[in-house]
Amino acid sequence: MRFTSEQHLDDGVHERRFSLGEIPGILWTPGSASAPAPLILLGHPGGLRRMHPRLAARARHSAAEGFAAATIELPGSGDRPRSAAAEEARADLRRALEAGEPVDDEIVDRLVLPLVEEAVPEWRATLDALLLLPEIGGPVGYAGGVISIGIRLAVVEPRISAALLFAGSFVPRTLFEEARQVNIPLQVLLQWDDEGNDRQMALELFDAFGTREKTLHANMGGHTGVPEFEGDDGNRFFARHLK
Amino acid sequence: MRFTSEQHLDDGVHERRFSLGEIPGILWTPGSASAPAPLILLGHPGGLRRMHPRLAARARHSAAEGFAAATIELPGSGDRPRSAAAEEARADLRRALEAGEPVDDEIVDRLVLPLVEEAVPEWRATLDALLLLPEIGGPVGYAGGVISIGIRLAVVEPRISAALLFAGSFVPRTLFEEARQVNIPLQVLLQWDDEGNDRQMALELFDAFGTREKTLHANMGGHTGVPEFEGDDGNRFFARHLK
Repeated sequence: MRFTSEQHLDDGVHERRFSLGEIPGILWTPGSASAPAPLILLGHPGGLRRMHPRLAARARHSAAEGFAAATIELPGSGDRPRSAAAEEARADLRRALEAGEPVDDEIVDRLVLPLVEEAVPEWRATLDALLLLPEIGGPVGYAGGVISIGIRLAVVEPRISAALLFAGSFVPRTLFEEARQVNIPLQVLLQWDDEGNDRQMALELFDAFGTREKTLHANMGGHTGVPEFEGDDGNRFFARHLK
Repeated sequence: MRFTSEQHLDDGVHERRFSLGEIPGILWTPGSASAPAPLILLGHPGGLRRMHPRLAARARHSAAEGFAAATIELPGSGDRPRSAAAEEARADLRRALEAGEPVDDEIVDRLVLPLVEEAVPEWRATLDALLLLPEIGGPVGYAGGVISIGIRLAVVEPRISAALLFAGSFVPRTLFEEARQVNIPLQVLLQWDDEGNDRQMALELFDAFGTREKTLHANMGGHTGVPEFEGDDGNRFFARHLK
């Protein structure tokens, strides 16, 4: 892991960009940490440049409660090389949506499964590197989107102790099965009117999670309309489980 | 309104029993209030004696955040005179449930509608009386069960500014219609595994509420298994809207 730039934000948060091999990422650490900070991995749908303002806002909100936060670019997004197969699956998905047709499970599998297969080891390698830093320590949480990646990480990565997942559509059936194996505390955010999101499927997925300690927070509005108070709720969720 | 007994609890909370005509009730006020306290009306399924420990715990939790809380006995519950029609409807409901039959809308209407018709004016009269007390003032919230009563109150009582409703079954169809007229902030608690509770109906009711400012919190477990942290979440919900 190589730090490529750093910046001290006005709230004292330290924002550092890094590269882990070919993977670009960002690490935010609280300004006033006396002990190693628990870490929250921030998931997102890809495209770090576009996502940066929202991710930085979440990271700074978490830093105010003493958490470090980190994110990496997804395979095939941002400046990372595209995969022809993923681009083809994305085009097939777009065609189905534009035609108003139901999206075939086979398209979802082609789009999401390779992404999960590739992204999860990258998140784990990032975690290996981050946990070597003296300012990072203790339990780890995962917060954010691409819920399929969150599910797989929660199942395979024992260092992740709690996850705050954003409900999203296009979850392969096999990930529903894996969801039954998730046994860490979960908070699931659902935007009730999210047009790009199948509400019934999101409720079924919430039902499928194997953990007994799961809470669903549903709010009105579309994909990007999560109310501000959910940021505080998220901090308290992680404070309960990571501190 | 006549106070019939009073007690200072060890956290400084002042618990007073009262009668409003034939209706028994309880008022809890915070020990250290300097200004008139915002008020939370605590709904419950009836039977103040049985419900007292849970209600008192909720009231004390709210008092710690500066809220007063009050509750009254429901018509036909506790020591209040029974209604023959309500008892008959309750017996019909029990028969249907024991026989594993679907519960007829007609039974639900006979059971719940007269209760709503009678209880809501009693709650409003209680509110009239409570708001005359110098220690009570400012905005009012409703928190608790018999969701049908909460819906009607939210629609007809302009002094109620926010409601925290516990999802429950046996909501008459006409109350679904009234739910569309609710335009105050809502937080709805749903126990996902509540055997006495139709989850799909609860989700439909949440969808029906007319307000844009509504949040659903679903947790695992049965009817009485609401996690402790929801008490804090409820306080914060009311702090956002009543302070």
